[in-house]
Amino acid sequence: MEGDIGAALIVIGNEVLSGRTQDANIQYIASGLNDVGIRLKEVRIVEDDEAAIVKAVNELRAAYTYVFTTGGIGPTHDDITSECVAKAFGVPLLRDPRAVERLLRQIKPENLNEARLRMANIPEGADLIDNPVSHAPGFRIGNVHVMAGVPKIMQAMFDGVKGGLQGGRPLVSANVTLHMGEGVIADGLRQIQADHPEVEIGSYPFSRDGHYGTVIVTRGPDPAVVGKVSERVAEMAETLGGRVEREGRV
Amino acid sequence: MEGDIGAALIVIGNEVLSGRTQDANIQYIASGLNDVGIRLKEVRIVEDDEAAIVKAVNELRAAYTYVFTTGGIGPTHDDITSECVAKAFGVPLLRDPRAVERLLRQIKPENLNEARLRMANIPEGADLIDNPVSHAPGFRIGNVHVMAGVPKIMQAMFDGVKGGLQGGRPLVSANVTLHMGEGVIADGLRQIQADHPEVEIGSYPFSRDGHYGTVIVTRGPDPAVVGKVSERVAEMAETLGGRVEREGRV
Repeated sequence: MEGDIGAALIVIGNEVLSGRTQDANIQYIASGLNDVGIRLKEVRIVEDDEAAIVKAVNELRAAYTYVFTTGGIGPTHDDITSECVAKAFGVPLLRDPRAVERLLRQIKPENLNEARLRMANIPEGADLIDNPVSHAPGFRIGNVHVMAGVPKIMQAMFDGVKGGLQGGRPLVSANVTLHMGEGVIADGLRQIQADHPEVEIGSYPFSRDGHYGTVIVTRGPDPAVVGKVSERVAEMAETLGGRVEREGRV
Repeated sequence: MEGDIGAALIVIGNEVLSGRTQDANIQYIASGLNDVGIRLKEVRIVEDDEAAIVKAVNELRAAYTYVFTTGGIGPTHDDITSECVAKAFGVPLLRDPRAVERLLRQIKPENLNEARLRMANIPEGADLIDNPVSHAPGFRIGNVHVMAGVPKIMQAMFDGVKGGLQGGRPLVSANVTLHMGEGVIADGLRQIQADHPEVEIGSYPFSRDGHYGTVIVTRGPDPAVVGKVSERVAEMAETLGGRVEREGRV
């Protein structure tokens, strides 16, 4: 859609790719960006591997207005995000006194060993991102926002950053649930989408108690248009004899 | 690790990127590949957009032994995966009589409208992938496996395909839960990883009831080595005075 401001997310971590962990961050970031009129257009999940991370950061920061990363900024050997982002930007990774000061809010000086101090290594020229949960900061360099992978910490970091992003008009959506299969309404739906390129109509089939149904999500920046198109979908389905539940705007 | 056979997954669908839907397929595919000795090395989630899908398919099929896609093979206007994969391979998309025959197992001939017949459009030269749930098939062309997005159908398709993939030795893993923060064990852990490049040691912090802990996952192809390294991690943590739970191989 016109005026789109696009973002990409890089999820860094072998644990999601091995199937050990179900990702818990994509949906939170997707919804939050939507609230401020930014569209998440691509997600990449990559291994804890320098070449993979550097490549993803450089490709995506060139392609989208905003990039976010989650994971890999802790104290252990598998936390390599900060050095990879520094490499991607071609800047040195430096021990940042502002970040050391924040670590000292959480960690006693005698416990601030070299491993923990790695969490204060920040690419030159980056701004810190607040971590109200456990203080070890994230950072922003250029259009790339580097955040923790632990969901509670990531959410706190993202909520702090979100207000400062320059978005467009937030997208709103309206749902109708049609108690009929996709194949029945597909032709009518295609016509409505063709008549209204200013919205995006998504069709999501489900089966429940042996019956097929389809949720139609109409999405766009103008609430009046979204409501009108969604109502047209509902009427089209009713004309075909289907039962329809209108769920209002979400 | 040596001998790695790598795979990538492309999740196609605006509904995951908008935050409407929590992806339910990545973890299933990741675990299933692991079972047959294939390593999921990258996931991309892309919009229902031709340029985005073609680019992802072509980049990833060149980079990895296997590629899987989920989503976008239904009958509605937003289902464009099959034509995009045909474009990526530079072959025509044809109405496939084998696929029409399968649709007729589920759909009465008088209900097999043009929208539903789109589900029988398959790139030239592709093999069909069985869909024991609702019959509309997926397909394989080259090293790319195109599957449905609905989890129940995707799982049935993937389970059918899995046995025919050429994997390496399955990776096994062993977990130990350390009731101490990552910062305490990071130095010892780094040393153990340096001594054992043949395994991969992941460190996953958690907090529970106000206490910090870390799960250490050791992963590799040789069960004896994985067990030995995991035990060394446990002993290192005990030497540092931490409480350790050994969870055995998973």
